[in-house]
Amino acid sequence: MSQIETMPESHNPYADGIAYADGDYMPVAEARIPILDWGFLHSDVTYDVVAVWGGGFFRLSDHLDRFYRGIEKLHMQSPYDRDETASILTECVRRTGLREAYVKVILTRGTPPPGTRDPRACENRFYALAIPYIWIASPEKQEQGLHLTISSIPRIAPESVDPTVKNFHWGDMVQGLFEAYDRGAETPVLTDGAGNITEGPGFNLFASIDGRLITPASGVLLGITRMTVIELAQSLNVKVDVGTLTEAELRQADEIFISSTAGGVMPVTQLDSKPIGNGHKGILTSRIQALYWSKRAEGWHGTKVEDVLNG
Amino acid sequence: MSQIETMPESHNPYADGIAYADGDYMPVAEARIPILDWGFLHSDVTYDVVAVWGGGFFRLSDHLDRFYRGIEKLHMQSPYDRDETASILTECVRRTGLREAYVKVILTRGTPPPGTRDPRACENRFYALAIPYIWIASPEKQEQGLHLTISSIPRIAPESVDPTVKNFHWGDMVQGLFEAYDRGAETPVLTDGAGNITEGPGFNLFASIDGRLITPASGVLLGITRMTVIELAQSLNVKVDVGTLTEAELRQADEIFISSTAGGVMPVTQLDSKPIGNGHKGILTSRIQALYWSKRAEGWHGTKVEDVLNG
Repeated sequence: MSQIETMPESHNPYADGIAYADGDYMPVAEARIPILDWGFLHSDVTYDVVAVWGGGFFRLSDHLDRFYRGIEKLHMQSPYDRDETASILTECVRRTGLREAYVKVILTRGTPPPGTRDPRACENRFYALAIPYIWIASPEKQEQGLHLTISSIPRIAPESVDPTVKNFHWGDMVQGLFEAYDRGAETPVLTDGAGNITEGPGFNLFASIDGRLITPASGVLLGITRMTVIELAQSLNVKVDVGTLTEAELRQADEIFISSTAGGVMPVTQLDSKPIGNGHKGILTSRIQALYWSKRAEGWHGTKVEDVLNG
Repeated sequence: MSQIETMPESHNPYADGIAYADGDYMPVAEARIPILDWGFLHSDVTYDVVAVWGGGFFRLSDHLDRFYRGIEKLHMQSPYDRDETASILTECVRRTGLREAYVKVILTRGTPPPGTRDPRACENRFYALAIPYIWIASPEKQEQGLHLTISSIPRIAPESVDPTVKNFHWGDMVQGLFEAYDRGAETPVLTDGAGNITEGPGFNLFASIDGRLITPASGVLLGITRMTVIELAQSLNVKVDVGTLTEAELRQADEIFISSTAGGVMPVTQLDSKPIGNGHKGILTSRIQALYWSKRAEGWHGTKVEDVLNG
């Protein structure tokens, strides 16, 4: 990393983000993957994202569990075990100097030997990166609440691509984003094509109806923030149904919020240009959001970066 | 390209393949895409593949038509127009010295500005590569015929991801390949989940039933080789139905073959471990395959690499 030597000490070359690729650390803007890697050519890849807040990872162990479960389901093998992965992610964050970060770990299929197309013959490739924390909705936007639209594009069916294996199959999501912008909304949520809500780009969804929370059970990523919201709601004695949530039910909801590692609990106040409830951030949403951030601040499910470094 | 200068003249550094990336030519093994490109992170990308045989592109104009139609459907914009793209692909082939090549052109979404996730703010990125010609089934294997299996994993629905925009959403296809290998077959074909055949990894499928050919109309890429087969069959006065082909019909077919830029017309002689017809390459299949290659050899729909170079 010759840049470290040639740049003034006050400027950290990793401040805008770092990546770990091919066994080395580099500014994230310089990180590349081979064009022949099936992770690109066939979106044959899984990944996970962990948040760092106040210098601590949130639920690192749960994220690593999910990442390694996905790897197994895809018949892949990571060159690094859980502890080594935790160390690499931690070293990424440490080098950036970031206290709030969005930390991604990726395993791609790799490239088959020339002339073949057998995924079993590939050496899987490991990548990691840490960049400044990303919000699906900024804190200011969250006060106002998001404008959501129900996309006309159905989510890729779970029978075709398992959504519990965190994946980059976002063709439906990206076209849903274009549709949302066209409609004056900020983000879409997708259905299963049969009138049931699934998930949106990078988030799970909750609706509050008659005092209980509903979140879709299937056709969705089993989000770590989703799991966290379920735990927090239960601690508040709020009943949570993990089941089906129809488009019609969503349109009648008292409150709606989305959950994501990229922003936590984020209120929705408009659905297809109509106000949800009174059009302001809901009371239950606010309670769960406040509890989420106060527990995060307390270090709940947290792993301090320096603790990983000191073993 | 310092390698050209330092290597002995007899060794062409591009013989194993070349790529065009970031405005420069390089050995394909060195070509990389940024890890933050949505082409990777969200499989937000389209591409096309043209074959070169005997020094000539096959149906270059049809491939470019499809590529630019896909770009438009994805709301993307290529930095190069059709003629410039044709020139880059030609230059790729010329530098490799290959007479038979597999030539790919790719447009990715690019990377949104830091902190945003708006695909409209991305500068789309152009890549091209040329590598030695790839066969889904080798010429030897084609004499014997392929062993095909009907996958239990349905193809991603066309409502979710438009298969006529050639894409890298292959999660279903790759898991289908693993399933095929487990069953002792060489490749899967996927259904729509409702008993209708769609396509397989990199190919369209034709069945011969009672003297007429059937190929699925929907849920498939509109393959250029598929279109070519339809034209050839018609020239032989063979009726072609572009419609539905059920799993049950496929199991009763007299002959089956697949079509792909990566190998042309390739016979299937076993389906789920049972022989198709008499278990040998079919008569109609052989006629179409022979006609395909004889017309290719004559330069039908061909564009000589040197003709593009000389304007």
